[in-house]
Amino acid sequence: MDATKHVEAYKADPARVERRLSELAAIGADPGGGITRLAYTPAERAAHALFARWAESLGKRVEVDAAGNTVAVFVEGDPYFLAGSHLDTVAHGGAYDGPVGVVGALEAATLAADGLRHGLRVVVFAGEEGARFGRPNLGSAAAAGLLRGDDYARLRDADGVMLAEAAAALGFSPPRVDRWLDKKIACFFEIHIEQGRQLELAATRIGLVDAIAGAIRVRLDITGRPDHSGATPMEIRSDALAAAAQLILAVEEIARLYRSTVATVGRLEVRPNSITTVPGQVVLWADIRDVDADQQRQAARLLFERAEGVGAARGVSISGEVVSNQAPVVLDAWPRALVRGECDARRLSYRVMPSGAGHDAAIVARRAPATMLFIPCIDGVSHSPGEKASPDDVALAAELVAAAVRRADRLIE
Amino acid sequence: MDATKHVEAYKADPARVERRLSELAAIGADPGGGITRLAYTPAERAAHALFARWAESLGKRVEVDAAGNTVAVFVEGDPYFLAGSHLDTVAHGGAYDGPVGVVGALEAATLAADGLRHGLRVVVFAGEEGARFGRPNLGSAAAAGLLRGDDYARLRDADGVMLAEAAAALGFSPPRVDRWLDKKIACFFEIHIEQGRQLELAATRIGLVDAIAGAIRVRLDITGRPDHSGATPMEIRSDALAAAAQLILAVEEIARLYRSTVATVGRLEVRPNSITTVPGQVVLWADIRDVDADQQRQAARLLFERAEGVGAARGVSISGEVVSNQAPVVLDAWPRALVRGECDARRLSYRVMPSGAGHDAAIVARRAPATMLFIPCIDGVSHSPGEKASPDDVALAAELVAAAVRRADRLIE
Repeated sequence: MDATKHVEAYKADPARVERRLSELAAIGADPGGGITRLAYTPAERAAHALFARWAESLGKRVEVDAAGNTVAVFVEGDPYFLAGSHLDTVAHGGAYDGPVGVVGALEAATLAADGLRHGLRVVVFAGEEGARFGRPNLGSAAAAGLLRGDDYARLRDADGVMLAEAAAALGFSPPRVDRWLDKKIACFFEIHIEQGRQLELAATRIGLVDAIAGAIRVRLDITGRPDHSGATPMEIRSDALAAAAQLILAVEEIARLYRSTVATVGRLEVRPNSITTVPGQVVLWADIRDVDADQQRQAARLLFERAEGVGAARGVSISGEVVSNQAPVVLDAWPRALVRGECDARRLSYRVMPSGAGHDAAIVARRAPATMLFIPCIDGVSHSPGEKASPDDVALAAELVAAAVRRADRLIE
Repeated sequence: MDATKHVEAYKADPARVERRLSELAAIGADPGGGITRLAYTPAERAAHALFARWAESLGKRVEVDAAGNTVAVFVEGDPYFLAGSHLDTVAHGGAYDGPVGVVGALEAATLAADGLRHGLRVVVFAGEEGARFGRPNLGSAAAAGLLRGDDYARLRDADGVMLAEAAAALGFSPPRVDRWLDKKIACFFEIHIEQGRQLELAATRIGLVDAIAGAIRVRLDITGRPDHSGATPMEIRSDALAAAAQLILAVEEIARLYRSTVATVGRLEVRPNSITTVPGQVVLWADIRDVDADQQRQAARLLFERAEGVGAARGVSISGEVVSNQAPVVLDAWPRALVRGECDARRLSYRVMPSGAGHDAAIVARRAPATMLFIPCIDGVSHSPGEKASPDDVALAAELVAAAVRRADRLIE
């Protein structure tokens, strides 16, 4: 059968995938488990350098732009297909969030390059995780012209180091990057772990992402009165933590208004945080995400309304601030249709699904067509040393990307 | 009139009170404001040494016991009256919680000593605040024989230093203390700031404490699942912080069951405490206080029941532990009646009230009669650099104690 013959032609090598993933996992490995390769650190650069060595050993030209994004040119030419992901991690993160997309892209490019009519490149974006500077997708945003000059001085890590300084210490100058994420890109492909449990629960190996959720992050500063926990009757307290408790539950309720909204209070700081003092101050961070921009905005608005109500009812003062606001992105249908066609040809079940997490693909999608393939991560664990995905699934996703690239290569001008 | 004449006889000196309070406030003063004289530190010892110098300059013999409690003998003899408080503070605490009782006792003893038939001593108890070792009233409990040998090794500060080590470094050995809080004490008097706002709200300068609340401290360990805040639908989350929010509100509700119960969640630890992760773990400390032991126990029992219910409903695991359990203490009526008589003689309004906070008087009361006089602290602020009380009120309370001592001196055998 034709379909079978077609499948035979593109076999990725799970053993090589596994070997490369474990070579990457050794860079920035924490003594206590987990991996720390924060954005714009020597550890992240070491991972990019390993990628560059792999590409060069395949005879490919490697370029590093002024933002620290590393690109391997598999086939010269415009327009070109682009595949890749990132190699930075959160603190004490895992070995799969990012690396599966880079190692998978190398497999896909190796399989797809031969006789291609258009160009083909593999990219490692710098600084995808927001863990260090509070803002994600630094490298891709720089290459897309989406960072402003003052962002480089404004964004600082926990030690007060400016993004501009951190980049300069490694020889980079992101503000000088030539915007190269543009219409010359025929399509961007990113393979990534799901970071959730939907694929695993559905026993499905491939997720086809149709939209990437945006995120509105809200900071609420709740100021009550620090009082002695023994000497202060309940009636005269202004307990900032009790007010926060109502808002934590309000965030949960608001998220349940729409099927696609998720909302989380992930971070809370309590002051003075002493057993014998009624909390006088709480800072609460809420993360509201949706693939629908209107719903996302409405959820944030509702949270501000609830904060106002709780503050008035409890006699605590609550001030709110939107600390970041990323709009959701709907991905182009046509590259997803090509991948779906490949899945059908292999009688492979897949799930079309939104991504709740942000990705470089959402940045690229603002400049060029982009599509994402999710593979399961065991038990949904991510951003943690326990993160785990199957090299077989990486190889499978790489084969689908390679096949979709070759199909697209024949379709486009 | 006889009452007026009687009052004239005992005039304390507010200026001396103020001077002594400010000399004490210079010891352990933090550069950024506030005072830090933690239990069993050189700063606490320096404050005791200043007290000893004051007493010695009055020609009084000073003894320091093996637990670091400092006693000045104003009048030799058994039984004896005892007055005093403590000079340690919480971290970044104030200048009045403790010092007003020591400086006030010095005034009272100076006024009352002349021609007394029974003995009279002033005590500074060591380590009253639970801030450093988690357990309050270390010095008084040692002198009352209420600390067990293994407590000295079990109690550790945040740096892991054992109470026994901290005391030994200052030349003390609390386990070897001779129990001296016993029936030889005719009555203990402690002047203290209220640490609440009831006196201030009632425009009353003196509180007469009839009972000291107990405290049950409960630690709840809530274990959910740390999941990605974007990639995890609401339906499959096990959010430890949302469960904690329900329990924070439950603690508030439980406290409202009885008029005398107060209950507080003052401390909360959230892990990993990252904006983009559903909290996987929360540790919550609740402080439940009542002057009624049955109600206090029932409130704690209710909290455990609610924790079980919330855990089951949310699919999070919650384990609870009672970390400390102090029974409430009802203070003897007769010394309070003497002080009340002095208030009436001066046409001074007073308020008979329970103490929500714990005090050394609650420890002494288990071995001998004890009474407490509260003075207002401005705006109820305590355990904070903003703590403030009036030297006039300290002097007034000292006069009441001196008069009550002299009255009791004539009444008892």
